[in-house]
Amino acid sequence: MPLGHNEGARPPSEKPLRPMTDILGHSSKGTDRMAGKAYADFIELVKEYYDVGYGQGWLQWDQEVMMPEGGAAERASQLATLAKVAHGMLTSDRMGSLLKELEGAPDLTPEEAANVREVKWMYDRAVKMPPELVKELTKHSSLAMQAWQKARKANRYKDFEPFLQHMIDLKCQQANAIGYEDVPYDALLDEYEPGARSRDVVKVFDSLQSRLTPIVKAIVDSDVKPDEGILTKAFPIDKQRDFGNWLVREIGYDYNCGRTDVSAHPFTTGSIQDVRFTTRFQERDIRPALFANIHEAGHAIYQQGIDPKNYGTPMGDSVSLGIHESQSRFWENVIGRSRPFWRCYYPDLKKAFPRQFRNVRLPDFYAAINLVRPSLIRVEADEVTYSLHIMLRFDIERKMVNGELCAKDVPEVWNEKMRQYLGITPPNDADGCMQDIHWSMGYQGYFPTYALGNIYAAQLTHKMERSVKGFWDLVERGEFKPIKGWLNRNIHSKGRLLRAEDLIKGLTGEGLNADHYIAYIKSKFGPIYDVRL
Amino acid sequence: MPLGHNEGARPPSEKPLRPMTDILGHSSKGTDRMAGKAYADFIELVKEYYDVGYGQGWLQWDQEVMMPEGGAAERASQLATLAKVAHGMLTSDRMGSLLKELEGAPDLTPEEAANVREVKWMYDRAVKMPPELVKELTKHSSLAMQAWQKARKANRYKDFEPFLQHMIDLKCQQANAIGYEDVPYDALLDEYEPGARSRDVVKVFDSLQSRLTPIVKAIVDSDVKPDEGILTKAFPIDKQRDFGNWLVREIGYDYNCGRTDVSAHPFTTGSIQDVRFTTRFQERDIRPALFANIHEAGHAIYQQGIDPKNYGTPMGDSVSLGIHESQSRFWENVIGRSRPFWRCYYPDLKKAFPRQFRNVRLPDFYAAINLVRPSLIRVEADEVTYSLHIMLRFDIERKMVNGELCAKDVPEVWNEKMRQYLGITPPNDADGCMQDIHWSMGYQGYFPTYALGNIYAAQLTHKMERSVKGFWDLVERGEFKPIKGWLNRNIHSKGRLLRAEDLIKGLTGEGLNADHYIAYIKSKFGPIYDVRL
Repeated sequence: MPLGHNEGARPPSEKPLRPMTDILGHSSKGTDRMAGKAYADFIELVKEYYDVGYGQGWLQWDQEVMMPEGGAAERASQLATLAKVAHGMLTSDRMGSLLKELEGAPDLTPEEAANVREVKWMYDRAVKMPPELVKELTKHSSLAMQAWQKARKANRYKDFEPFLQHMIDLKCQQANAIGYEDVPYDALLDEYEPGARSRDVVKVFDSLQSRLTPIVKAIVDSDVKPDEGILTKAFPIDKQRDFGNWLVREIGYDYNCGRTDVSAHPFTTGSIQDVRFTTRFQERDIRPALFANIHEAGHAIYQQGIDPKNYGTPMGDSVSLGIHESQSRFWENVIGRSRPFWRCYYPDLKKAFPRQFRNVRLPDFYAAINLVRPSLIRVEADEVTYSLHIMLRFDIERKMVNGELCAKDVPEVWNEKMRQYLGITPPNDADGCMQDIHWSMGYQGYFPTYALGNIYAAQLTHKMERSVKGFWDLVERGEFKPIKGWLNRNIHSKGRLLRAEDLIKGLTGEGLNADHYIAYIKSKFGPIYDVRL
Repeated sequence: MPLGHNEGARPPSEKPLRPMTDILGHSSKGTDRMAGKAYADFIELVKEYYDVGYGQGWLQWDQEVMMPEGGAAERASQLATLAKVAHGMLTSDRMGSLLKELEGAPDLTPEEAANVREVKWMYDRAVKMPPELVKELTKHSSLAMQAWQKARKANRYKDFEPFLQHMIDLKCQQANAIGYEDVPYDALLDEYEPGARSRDVVKVFDSLQSRLTPIVKAIVDSDVKPDEGILTKAFPIDKQRDFGNWLVREIGYDYNCGRTDVSAHPFTTGSIQDVRFTTRFQERDIRPALFANIHEAGHAIYQQGIDPKNYGTPMGDSVSLGIHESQSRFWENVIGRSRPFWRCYYPDLKKAFPRQFRNVRLPDFYAAINLVRPSLIRVEADEVTYSLHIMLRFDIERKMVNGELCAKDVPEVWNEKMRQYLGITPPNDADGCMQDIHWSMGYQGYFPTYALGNIYAAQLTHKMERSVKGFWDLVERGEFKPIKGWLNRNIHSKGRLLRAEDLIKGLTGEGLNADHYIAYIKSKFGPIYDVRL
């Protein structure tokens, strides 16, 4: 019975199935335009590329959150294959020729042009990488992570040093393969913060560091000593979870398009209509349940705010790690550690933990959650010292990649900078230059995005205080819809229409600028520590 | 710095990373053999195909068990893309030419030859399907499922009829495209039970039906009426879960290579070292917690028993749905509803639910869990009547595909057969011929595998009673290692080395044979119902 000539069969036609592209909001209209057909084909291919990427994402989420131990080897194989498939799609001849056809096409909308621009950027980075280098990097990062773990445990930097040096050499090869204008490091930074230049970042970071370090000193010298003990009593985990889950719903996290779970290291993953994050709980410390939770919810609210019709394209993706971090830090620090926020929610917290907070006044609670203390470990650092930890790492990794610093000299430089920035000296390398996993994984270029997040968050806050009517009153009333709405409209829903610098410039009238961050820190911590900053 | 000439860098060589193929146990040795290189390339490609398939499997698991509602559209897109990728790998020119090179290669081991044979079978089925037919089937099954849901709710078979007829027409096209020797239906059955012929199945099913129906009648006419009320008291869900989880661990399910969750319809999914199943609980019925649980654990124990070194190949896959079902039904019914099993575990059950089972004697519990009662609904059917439900469906779907029955005549034939096989008449089509989702999904050919599972389970039990020393004593002592070990050695670890019929023949000396199933039913239910069967 030849296909299409099956006269007997009458396909029921009352309710035609909507094509998937329609369901997901992509329209293949506009084929009358010059670029119409090519653009539709391009989007189809791009969406497949993103589909596979999200597939990888969910397998990784499952690996961290759900997978039984025994599944590790099989999962590694599945992830490696999906990575290969995605890479093949991105670097395919078809993608190359579609991009060629579409680049500079005169009749693309700004959104379409952004999709082409961003995929071209991904494509270029991918095709420039020699397959042997990709393989060697994958292989070496696995080796280097193992070596790092062992060396850190034994506090023997010497054992890690050759692995770090080889990683740097490979990253240099990568930078050379990809190309750069100023310095090799830019080619790496560009992966995490597209379009950023270390030249500009250095300038802003330097001005930030020179102003932050005296602030830290003034706070350390202050007589005010917040009582951390308020936060480190026994808090039953299930109650922490209930409160934490409720709190992120309050600020606008949508459980219909996500879920929260527990993992050793909190993280957020997902697309737009399925964005999940994890958090962790400590029996004797309420802080992770509050702030790690709000931090991840901030990342998730960004993703959930993207326009679902742009799923599977750069317009349905986030701008950069720096902008992402600006969202998490805005909600965690600017909002979540603010006095108005806790004027609103402290009564609820007291209701959830009546015994623990019985005799604790709000000002003492507020001071305790804003404790500033120079410390050795980045992930435990407070809002004021955090960026200094980052700048130290940025300085070291940049100089290494640019050939100005060898692996063997890292501990000395690290310790010297710790003294200079934070006034403390690491007692050993395990809690010094070996504390982070990033360098062993080949994530050179990632660190600065954390501090960029702090800076952008302050710039956006400055703008919102002027654009969102009664900003802090809203916070104090727990009415976050206007604030989330502003972020949704001005950042989230824009996808990758603009690069970070242009996005911020368009919104605030200026590029990366640490002044607002400094002003924010001064106006917040001066009163807490009773010092003039 | 050109790649490979980086003189400065000394890659640390103390601990070379094992290649993934090595970790997963595949060896690329034997390149000195004629087929060596081609076989290694073939396995690499096959493993990628399986990797993507398992990726789909985990995304589907996640969809059923974890995914928030909002994620549906995005997940559909991800699954469609992975299906396309997998199909592309299987039907690629490269796969075709490797298969051509390897087919009949003289120097393949039996395991290698099985891998080639089975992939060739998959490849043939896949390349023979016209892409337009695949599309039309996907589209129509979505429509037909919606129509089925609505029609069933409204109890209007007329509304479903044209959708069913069109599905049958499409399945006929599929059968014609794939090809067959005897009848079109064989091409569909082959998908779920590779190598099976309806000719043989009909013969065995007929002999089974003619003997089962009188058994059912004798049981119905018996004066013995087990007290179902024993099992339908209030059982706290969390205690049911604890007991159920413990019970499947007892029979040999390995939580290190799996996990259990809850879903509306219990199912098992996974590979070898990560095999998960779901179960469901009813507040006022302990049976799902016991038997749906053991049933799924039986499927999972099969998968976990496959040799991990064969991951990602047919040798690392299961034989057929019939053999799979033989494992689940062996554990659920032969073991899990046996007297020796509950001699061992009834005290534990009483300890878990002391109030509920206080005055319940073991014989009454045993009779209650083996209640036989002709009923309308397949999924609620007992061990004796279940196969009759299947044979009725097999008969109808086979005749439809073979052109001997039209959709419009299905209700009449269904009801007539229900009277003939089980002595009851469905009061409506919703609880009659519209009760199952399978036909609307295009799963014609699937149903018979359920009954094949019952038959194979009895054949294997007959063999094990003779091969595993003290078989029933072991069950009574809760020592399942020797039994699971026998299954591991003789079935699970063999992967797809043999097809179902040959596997069973090799183990028991005979092919598909319902005699053992009938003998098992008679010897078990005669005493319970105090009748000579």
